[in-house]
Amino acid sequence: PIDTTRFYVIALNSLGSCKGSTGPASDNPTTGRPYRLDFPELCVEDIALSAMMLVEQLGISQLCTMVGPSMGGMSALSYLQQNKQGARHFLTISSSPNSEPFSIAIRSLQRELIVSDPDWNEGNYDEENWPVKGMRMARKLGMLSYRSAEEWRTRFGRREQNYFPTELFGMNYEVESYLEAAARRFVRSFDPCSYLYLSRAMDWFNIADGYPGLASALAGIELKSACVIGVESDILFPAHQQKEIAEALLANDIDTSFSNLESLMGHDAFLVDYAHFNAHVVAYFDRVWFEDDLSG
Amino acid sequence: PIDTTRFYVIALNSLGSCKGSTGPASDNPTTGRPYRLDFPELCVEDIALSAMMLVEQLGISQLCTMVGPSMGGMSALSYLQQNKQGARHFLTISSSPNSEPFSIAIRSLQRELIVSDPDWNEGNYDEENWPVKGMRMARKLGMLSYRSAEEWRTRFGRREQNYFPTELFGMNYEVESYLEAAARRFVRSFDPCSYLYLSRAMDWFNIADGYPGLASALAGIELKSACVIGVESDILFPAHQQKEIAEALLANDIDTSFSNLESLMGHDAFLVDYAHFNAHVVAYFDRVWFEDDLSG
Repeated sequence: PIDTTRFYVIALNSLGSCKGSTGPASDNPTTGRPYRLDFPELCVEDIALSAMMLVEQLGISQLCTMVGPSMGGMSALSYLQQNKQGARHFLTISSSPNSEPFSIAIRSLQRELIVSDPDWNEGNYDEENWPVKGMRMARKLGMLSYRSAEEWRTRFGRREQNYFPTELFGMNYEVESYLEAAARRFVRSFDPCSYLYLSRAMDWFNIADGYPGLASALAGIELKSACVIGVESDILFPAHQQKEIAEALLANDIDTSFSNLESLMGHDAFLVDYAHFNAHVVAYFDRVWFEDDLSG
Repeated sequence: PIDTTRFYVIALNSLGSCKGSTGPASDNPTTGRPYRLDFPELCVEDIALSAMMLVEQLGISQLCTMVGPSMGGMSALSYLQQNKQGARHFLTISSSPNSEPFSIAIRSLQRELIVSDPDWNEGNYDEENWPVKGMRMARKLGMLSYRSAEEWRTRFGRREQNYFPTELFGMNYEVESYLEAAARRFVRSFDPCSYLYLSRAMDWFNIADGYPGLASALAGIELKSACVIGVESDILFPAHQQKEIAEALLANDIDTSFSNLESLMGHDAFLVDYAHFNAHVVAYFDRVWFEDDLSG
């Protein structure tokens, strides 16, 4: 819903990811083989710093609008904390100012699933010996945290599945085949080591570390406006955390709107629930367009 | 909170469990070794039937009050469906008339964790080769579904842990050491095969199977009263399912009270949150005592 005739969109991959940026899956130039566990410890602040370096390299002194959903919202917050004039406007979606114990518990268990797979092999996996089971189960646990019980109730109910062979202790119901299919698509499409580094970085994140509170952690950030969107059914980046971000921005006299959407799609809503999201995102960018006098 | 000077309490272990009843961990008399996967398929209706046989064996024609929390509430429902005059009163706590896709997804992933452990070995584990990792991670996933994010937020926050050695991709935070300690206590205390059978039985359970709806599934049950208690923060046996049970009992003209407790303890509340539960349970048994004229 971002009008590219009005705005120039820069979409960047996170440092540490295997989808375009340097990370544990990248070749270590000194060995010619992937870094894996030799990749340095990575935190969200590093991800934000790498984005700042890219923007500087592009010769941009200030972004019109910083947009960050989920982990991207964490790095967007850190970007603005490290560069207080980094953007004029800020849209954060289903993100958080720090990881709470429930989300830490989920991610910690996901990581345990991966490193417990014999094929993880302390990071020495290869195409033939890939931690398929660990990645598959970690993805299923992820899906449990990305969607909502209510969505699945209306979508699957107790319908049985016949897509996969019925197994002794599983794969009886449609929700199970849905998770299996989603997990299989994921297993080889993301590097396990990248997954572990990014997952841990999220657990470590607390924008208020070293500050007395969230409002003071964001003090000095110069924004003309901010828009904070959350989803009521999100259990991973819960709605109250969106409210915390909005309140901290408001406490710094930043003109901030906050919307808590009634979507049933949980954390994934911003990826799939256009019906709930479009109007809010379009309206915010209309506002940015006119407030920045970009129309003139 | 059940006054044993007033009531004679019969607490029975579920068929299939390893805590006192026959199950996959019991010795198969024809081989002298545990049944394991040779144990017949088990459903909640079988558990209820075994309870009915016990009560009959004890020479009791009708129970004063049937009490069932969680899976026990499933088998209590089935008991009453199979023996419509089985009890005069009924207390069901944090249970459900059927398994919804979110709870199926959690249990299915727990089972996958266990059977993916190389030491599961198709059920041929022993004391030396026990599926420790699978059971440990299944228990952690269970804990995630038994408690609530809000409880953990107030209880652990982002406090770090130093009880266990800090690990590369985990065990940084107190919530992680809490889960690890709880999981370690569990791993050897429950038989993996029993766990799988009981877990699958819950997924299969739908008291309304073969009926047009829940009210007709409970039609004909003769109860003087019923009390249904749920917990708002329960994500495994959610509050709306307690309401469904209460409505179906009311639709059958059974005098039913329904309470939705504000406890933060989630599904586990009935095991730990005496403050919220005691008054309700005590009040219901006071009512039973006077209505049954047991005091006379």
